[in-house]
Amino acid sequence: MRAAAEIVKAYWYAADDRDWNAFAELLADDVVYEGPQTRERVRGAGNYVRFNVEGFPGDWHLRVVRIVGEDRHAASWIDFTNADGTTQPGLCFFELKDEGKIVRITDFWPDPYELPTKRAHLVERY
Amino acid sequence: MRAAAEIVKAYWYAADDRDWNAFAELLADDVVYEGPQTRERVRGAGNYVRFNVEGFPGDWHLRVVRIVGEDRHAASWIDFTNADGTTQPGLCFFELKDEGKIVRITDFWPDPYELPTKRAHLVERY
Repeated sequence: MRAAAEIVKAYWYAADDRDWNAFAELLADDVVYEGPQTRERVRGAGNYVRFNVEGFPGDWHLRVVRIVGEDRHAASWIDFTNADGTTQPGLCFFELKDEGKIVRITDFWPDPYELPTKRAHLVERY
Repeated sequence: MRAAAEIVKAYWYAADDRDWNAFAELLADDVVYEGPQTRERVRGAGNYVRFNVEGFPGDWHLRVVRIVGEDRHAASWIDFTNADGTTQPGLCFFELKDEGKIVRITDFWPDPYELPTKRAHLVERY
Protein backbone atom coordinates (compact mmCIF):
# COMPACT_ATOMS: atom_id res chain seq x y z
CA MET A 1 0.00 0.00 0.00
CA ARG A 2 1.23 3.50 -0.85
CA ALA A 3 1.82 5.76 2.12
CA ALA A 4 -1.36 7.47 3.34
CA ALA A 5 0.12 10.92 2.73
CA GLU A 6 0.87 10.00 -0.91
CA ILE A 7 -2.68 8.80 -1.47
CA VAL A 8 -4.15 12.01 -0.04
CA LYS A 9 -1.74 14.11 -2.09
CA ALA A 10 -2.95 12.28 -5.22
CA TYR A 11 -6.55 12.91 -4.13
CA TRP A 12 -6.06 16.68 -3.93
CA TYR A 13 -4.05 16.86 -7.15
CA ALA A 14 -6.75 14.91 -8.98
CA ALA A 15 -9.46 17.22 -7.59
CA ASP A 16 -7.54 20.34 -8.58
CA ASP A 17 -6.99 18.88 -12.07
CA ARG A 18 -10.68 17.83 -12.33
CA ASP A 19 -9.29 14.41 -13.20
CA TRP A 20 -12.36 12.59 -11.88
CA ASN A 21 -11.19 9.22 -13.17
CA ALA A 22 -7.98 9.45 -11.17
CA PHE A 23 -9.99 10.80 -8.23
CA ALA A 24 -12.44 7.88 -8.34
CA GLU A 25 -9.58 5.37 -8.49
CA LEU A 26 -8.52 6.49 -5.00
CA LEU A 27 -11.92 5.84 -3.42
CA ALA A 28 -13.32 2.66 -1.89
CA ASP A 29 -16.72 1.72 -3.34
CA ASP A 30 -18.25 2.24 0.10
CA VAL A 31 -16.54 5.54 0.88
CA VAL A 32 -18.46 7.79 3.29
CA TYR A 33 -18.00 11.57 3.26
CA GLU A 34 -19.21 13.73 6.15
CA GLY A 35 -19.27 17.48 6.66
CA PRO A 36 -19.97 17.95 10.38
CA GLN A 37 -20.67 21.69 10.07
CA THR A 38 -23.74 21.15 7.88
CA ARG A 39 -24.29 17.54 8.96
CA GLU A 40 -24.19 16.44 5.33
CA ARG A 41 -23.18 12.93 4.30
CA VAL A 42 -22.50 11.21 0.97
CA ARG A 43 -22.26 7.42 0.66
CA GLY A 44 -20.56 5.54 -2.15
CA ALA A 45 -17.85 6.38 -4.66
CA GLY A 46 -20.23 7.20 -7.52
CA ASN A 47 -22.27 9.58 -5.41
CA TYR A 48 -19.16 11.16 -3.99
CA VAL A 49 -17.64 11.88 -7.40
CA ARG A 50 -20.97 13.39 -8.49
CA PHE A 51 -21.07 15.48 -5.29
CA ASN A 52 -17.68 16.96 -6.20
CA VAL A 53 -18.42 17.48 -9.91
CA GLU A 54 -21.92 18.94 -9.53
CA GLY A 55 -21.75 20.40 -6.03
CA PHE A 56 -18.68 22.55 -6.60
CA PRO A 57 -18.77 24.00 -10.11
CA GLY A 58 -16.73 27.05 -11.05
CA ASP A 59 -13.09 27.89 -11.44
CA TRP A 60 -11.84 27.08 -7.95
CA HIS A 61 -8.31 25.97 -7.22
CA LEU A 62 -6.62 24.46 -4.23
CA ARG A 63 -3.14 24.34 -2.80
CA VAL A 64 -1.92 21.72 -0.36
CA VAL A 65 -0.44 23.36 2.75
CA ARG A 66 0.25 20.17 4.75
CA ILE A 67 -0.50 16.48 4.65
CA VAL A 68 0.25 14.22 7.61
CA GLY A 69 -0.15 10.46 7.19
CA GLU A 70 0.24 7.60 9.65
CA ASP A 71 -0.70 4.00 8.89
CA ARG A 72 -4.24 4.09 7.52
CA HIS A 73 -4.99 7.65 8.63
CA ALA A 74 -4.16 11.04 7.21
CA ALA A 75 -5.02 14.67 7.72
CA SER A 76 -4.73 17.49 5.20
CA TRP A 77 -4.76 21.26 5.31
CA ILE A 78 -5.45 22.96 2.00
CA ASP A 79 -6.03 26.54 0.89
CA PHE A 80 -9.08 26.68 -1.35
CA THR A 81 -9.40 29.65 -3.73
CA ASN A 82 -12.83 30.41 -5.15
CA ALA A 83 -13.39 31.80 -8.63
CA ASP A 84 -13.81 35.26 -7.05
CA GLY A 85 -10.31 35.05 -5.55
CA THR A 86 -11.41 34.57 -1.95
CA THR A 87 -9.56 31.83 -0.11
CA GLN A 88 -10.52 29.57 2.75
CA PRO A 89 -8.64 26.85 4.62
CA GLY A 90 -10.01 23.31 4.37
CA LEU A 91 -9.13 20.63 6.89
CA CYS A 92 -9.80 17.01 6.16
CA PHE A 93 -9.32 13.72 8.00
CA PHE A 94 -9.07 10.48 6.00
CA GLU A 95 -9.25 6.77 6.73
CA LEU A 96 -7.93 4.15 4.31
CA LYS A 97 -8.80 0.52 3.79
CA ASP A 98 -6.10 -2.14 3.86
CA GLU A 99 -5.56 -1.91 0.12
CA GLY A 100 -5.08 1.86 0.30
CA LYS A 101 -8.48 3.07 -0.89
CA ILE A 102 -10.03 6.06 0.87
CA VAL A 103 -13.06 4.88 2.83
CA ARG A 104 -13.85 7.79 5.13
CA ILE A 105 -13.51 11.54 4.68
CA THR A 106 -14.43 14.15 7.28
CA ASP A 107 -14.22 17.68 6.01
CA PHE A 108 -14.09 21.04 7.83
CA TRP A 109 -14.25 24.59 6.44
CA PRO A 110 -13.56 27.19 9.14
CA ASP A 111 -14.67 30.78 8.54
CA PRO A 112 -13.12 33.96 9.90
CA TYR A 113 -14.61 35.26 13.16
CA GLU A 114 -14.09 38.22 15.46
CA LEU A 115 -11.36 37.89 18.09
CA PRO A 116 -13.09 37.64 21.51
CA THR A 117 -12.23 40.71 23.58
CA LYS A 118 -11.53 38.57 26.66
CA ARG A 119 -8.32 37.26 25.13
CA ALA A 120 -7.36 40.22 22.96
CA HIS A 121 -4.68 41.34 25.46
CA LEU A 122 -3.01 37.93 25.25
CA VAL A 123 -2.31 37.89 21.50
CA GLU A 124 -0.87 39.88 18.62
CA ARG A 125 -2.67 40.18 15.27
CA TYR A 126 -1.26 39.34 11.87
CA MET B 1 12.29 11.53 20.33
CA ARG B 2 8.80 10.32 21.20
CA ALA B 3 6.43 9.85 18.29
CA ALA B 4 4.69 13.06 17.22
CA ALA B 5 1.26 11.59 17.90
CA GLU B 6 2.29 10.70 21.48
CA ILE B 7 3.52 14.23 22.11
CA VAL B 8 0.28 15.75 20.82
CA LYS B 9 -1.76 13.29 22.87
CA ALA B 10 0.17 14.39 25.99
CA TYR B 11 -0.48 18.03 25.02
CA TRP B 12 -4.26 17.55 24.94
CA TYR B 13 -4.34 15.44 28.09
CA ALA B 14 -2.32 18.09 29.95
CA ALA B 15 -4.66 20.83 28.70
CA ASP B 16 -7.77 18.91 29.73
CA ASP B 17 -6.20 18.25 33.17
CA ARG B 18 -5.14 21.91 33.52
CA ASP B 19 -1.68 20.48 34.23
CA TRP B 20 0.10 23.58 32.96
CA ASN B 21 3.52 22.37 34.09
CA ALA B 22 3.21 19.22 32.00
CA PHE B 23 1.77 21.33 29.17
CA ALA B 24 4.70 23.78 29.27
CA GLU B 25 7.21 20.89 29.23
CA LEU B 26 5.98 19.94 25.76
CA LEU B 27 6.59 23.40 24.26
CA ALA B 28 9.72 24.83 22.68
CA ASP B 29 10.73 28.18 24.20
CA ASP B 30 10.11 29.82 20.83
CA VAL B 31 6.78 28.15 20.11
CA VAL B 32 4.45 30.15 17.84
CA TYR B 33 0.67 29.68 17.97
CA GLU B 34 -1.56 31.00 15.19
CA GLY B 35 -5.34 31.08 14.80
CA PRO B 36 -5.94 31.90 11.12
CA GLN B 37 -9.66 32.61 11.57
CA THR B 38 -9.04 35.60 13.84
CA ARG B 39 -5.47 36.20 12.67
CA GLU B 40 -4.25 35.97 16.25
CA ARG B 41 -0.70 34.91 17.14
CA VAL B 42 1.12 34.13 20.39
CA ARG B 43 4.92 33.87 20.56
CA GLY B 44 6.88 32.08 23.27
CA ALA B 45 6.10 29.27 25.71
CA GLY B 46 5.39 31.57 28.66
CA ASN B 47 2.95 33.70 26.70
CA TYR B 48 1.32 30.64 25.24
CA VAL B 49 0.69 29.01 28.61
CA ARG B 50 -0.76 32.30 29.85
CA PHE B 51 -2.97 32.51 26.74
CA ASN B 52 -4.42 29.10 27.58
CA VAL B 53 -4.83 29.71 31.32
CA GLU B 54 -6.27 33.23 31.10
CA GLY B 55 -7.85 33.17 27.66
CA PHE B 56 -10.00 30.09 28.21
CA PRO B 57 -11.34 30.09 31.77
CA GLY B 58 -14.35 28.03 32.76
CA ASP B 59 -15.17 24.37 33.03
CA TRP B 60 -14.50 23.24 29.48
CA HIS B 61 -13.42 19.71 28.59
CA LEU B 62 -12.03 18.12 25.49
CA ARG B 63 -11.95 14.68 23.95
CA VAL B 64 -9.43 13.53 21.38
CA VAL B 65 -11.16 12.15 18.28
CA ARG B 66 -8.05 11.53 16.15
CA ILE B 67 -4.36 12.27 16.16
CA VAL B 68 -2.19 11.60 13.12
CA GLY B 69 1.58 11.97 13.43
CA GLU B 70 4.36 11.65 10.87
CA ASP B 71 7.99 12.56 11.53
CA ARG B 72 7.96 16.05 13.02
CA HIS B 73 4.37 16.86 12.05
CA ALA B 74 1.03 15.99 13.56
CA ALA B 75 -2.63 16.88 13.19
CA SER B 76 -5.36 16.52 15.79
CA TRP B 77 -9.14 16.57 15.81
CA ILE B 78 -10.73 17.14 19.18
CA ASP B 79 -14.26 17.70 20.44
CA PHE B 80 -14.33 20.68 22.78
CA THR B 81 -17.21 20.93 25.25
CA ASN B 82 -17.91 24.32 26.80
CA ALA B 83 -19.19 24.78 30.36
CA ASP B 84 -22.70 25.24 28.92
CA GLY B 85 -22.55 21.80 27.28
CA THR B 86 -22.19 23.02 23.70
CA THR B 87 -19.53 21.20 21.72
CA GLN B 88 -17.34 22.25 18.82
CA PRO B 89 -14.68 20.43 16.80
CA GLY B 90 -11.14 21.78 16.98
CA LEU B 91 -8.54 20.98 14.32
CA CYS B 92 -4.90 21.63 14.98
CA PHE B 93 -1.67 21.20 13.03
CA PHE B 94 1.63 20.87 14.91
CA GLU B 95 5.33 21.05 14.07
CA LEU B 96 8.00 19.65 16.36
CA LYS B 97 11.65 20.48 16.81
CA ASP B 98 14.31 17.77 16.58
CA GLU B 99 14.17 17.10 20.30
CA GLY B 100 10.39 16.67 20.20
CA LYS B 101 9.24 20.03 21.55
CA ILE B 102 6.22 21.64 19.91
CA VAL B 103 7.36 24.72 18.01
CA ARG B 104 4.38 25.61 15.84
CA ILE B 105 0.64 25.26 16.39
CA THR B 106 -2.05 26.27 13.90
CA ASP B 107 -5.53 26.05 15.29
CA PHE B 108 -8.96 25.97 13.56
CA TRP B 109 -12.45 26.09 15.08
CA PRO B 110 -15.15 25.49 12.45
CA ASP B 111 -18.71 26.60 13.21
CA PRO B 112 -21.94 25.10 11.90
CA TYR B 113 -23.35 26.69 8.74
CA GLU B 114 -26.39 26.24 6.51
CA LEU B 115 -26.15 23.62 3.79
CA PRO B 116 -26.00 25.46 0.43
CA THR B 117 -29.15 24.68 -1.57
CA LYS B 118 -27.12 24.08 -4.75
CA ARG B 119 -25.74 20.81 -3.36
CA ALA B 120 -28.67 19.79 -1.13
CA HIS B 121 -29.86 17.21 -3.68
CA LEU B 122 -26.45 15.52 -3.64
CA VAL B 123 -26.29 14.70 0.08
CA GLU B 124 -28.20 13.18 2.96
CA ARG B 125 -28.37 14.85 6.39
CA TYR B 126 -27.45 13.34 9.73
